[in-house]
Amino acid sequence: MISVLLIGKGNIATHLFEAFSNLKEIKVTQINSRELDNIPNADITIIAVSDDAIAEVSNKINNNFVVHTSGSFAMTHLKNKTRKGVFYMLQTFTKNKKVDFSKVPFCLEAEDKNDYQLLEKLAKLLSEHNYNIDSEQRKRLHVAAVFVNNFTNHMYKIGNDICKENNIPFKILGPLIDETASKIKTLSPEKAQTGPAIRNDEETIKNHLNLLSENNKEIYKLLTKSIQNGN
Amino acid sequence: MISVLLIGKGNIATHLFEAFSNLKEIKVTQINSRELDNIPNADITIIAVSDDAIAEVSNKINNNFVVHTSGSFAMTHLKNKTRKGVFYMLQTFTKNKKVDFSKVPFCLEAEDKNDYQLLEKLAKLLSEHNYNIDSEQRKRLHVAAVFVNNFTNHMYKIGNDICKENNIPFKILGPLIDETASKIKTLSPEKAQTGPAIRNDEETIKNHLNLLSENNKEIYKLLTKSIQNGN
Repeated sequence: MISVLLIGKGNIATHLFEAFSNLKEIKVTQINSRELDNIPNADITIIAVSDDAIAEVSNKINNNFVVHTSGSFAMTHLKNKTRKGVFYMLQTFTKNKKVDFSKVPFCLEAEDKNDYQLLEKLAKLLSEHNYNIDSEQRKRLHVAAVFVNNFTNHMYKIGNDICKENNIPFKILGPLIDETASKIKTLSPEKAQTGPAIRNDEETIKNHLNLLSENNKEIYKLLTKSIQNGN
Repeated sequence: MISVLLIGKGNIATHLFEAFSNLKEIKVTQINSRELDNIPNADITIIAVSDDAIAEVSNKINNNFVVHTSGSFAMTHLKNKTRKGVFYMLQTFTKNKKVDFSKVPFCLEAEDKNDYQLLEKLAKLLSEHNYNIDSEQRKRLHVAAVFVNNFTNHMYKIGNDICKENNIPFKILGPLIDETASKIKTLSPEKAQTGPAIRNDEETIKNHLNLLSENNKEIYKLLTKSIQNGN
């Protein structure tokens, strides 16, 4: 039995609480980060609050082993005087949408070897995808995640905007979006690239630019140049 | 029985030929676009060649009904003196990878109503996703496809590059990529957006920029600005 204390009431804390609650191997408690007067002890204390609150919250905790769930916050910046670690899930969580934790990659880090094994044991109860990722790697992984998630989603938004302006149902792009995501499981993104940029099809590029708003034109130009330069 | 003549030996022509060959309702012939001496007649003649060759190829054809498969070429630019149409598949095709045509959206256009119905009949043998898309809409849809496919794939490439540089397996980003693509089936891309840009988290943005190459920094800045401006 592993006892887990979850601090925070946001998206990640709530999803984790639900998942842990369903496992008989785990005894889980959840508290609000604003009510830190009587903090219960636990084998693992997970701080799941926004980045700018982690330092302050961790400063108030004396539990043996304290981890956070952030992609960009260094483990050593935790302010508890006890042992430290990281329990970062590389996934986007949506409020009110059930999370399939079995598909979530867990990025783990701990100062102490036994603590690492404990984190690994906890993660494995939810998912078989566990990675030892140190704070430097995690920082960069978080940037990569911004590109493949936030920026990709913005590409979808621009696609949606173009569809809306031209009375085309956005769902027409669904299969292409799926195939684009699926293709890179068997082909590197570099090899998967197609389209006017990589073909140096200047005629089509020119025609496309003529159809775009100033903002989207700038994005189109920059990404086309980047694809063509291979960087 | 619908007779189909496919002109071209590229990716699209080859995948279509294979799919049509498996259907008893269709009699299909495929010829090379460089051997247009003895062109067999057919109910539908499909020119599946690169954009810059469509005009020349169509100029040599006297068959009753001629369509092309391009996303950006206007129907009226076909040079045959007979009836014209478009049979555009909104999907990315990979050499040697089987296409599941049942998931491919077909964008159809024809000058003549009966021709349109014939195209629709043909498309429906492969997929239930058929759309009446005129040349103006198609041109813009093609631009949208560049954003959600080519540019999204470039986001994956940058993610892959960052992983490689930091000894992180790229597959760790797989579930996030999948969830990003899946989320917009139930949520608009605008509502699905998360991350430092939309949160106006200037601290994280600054930290991310410090980790990036000049090229990727430029992309990060422009896309962050675009997300924040809501355009």
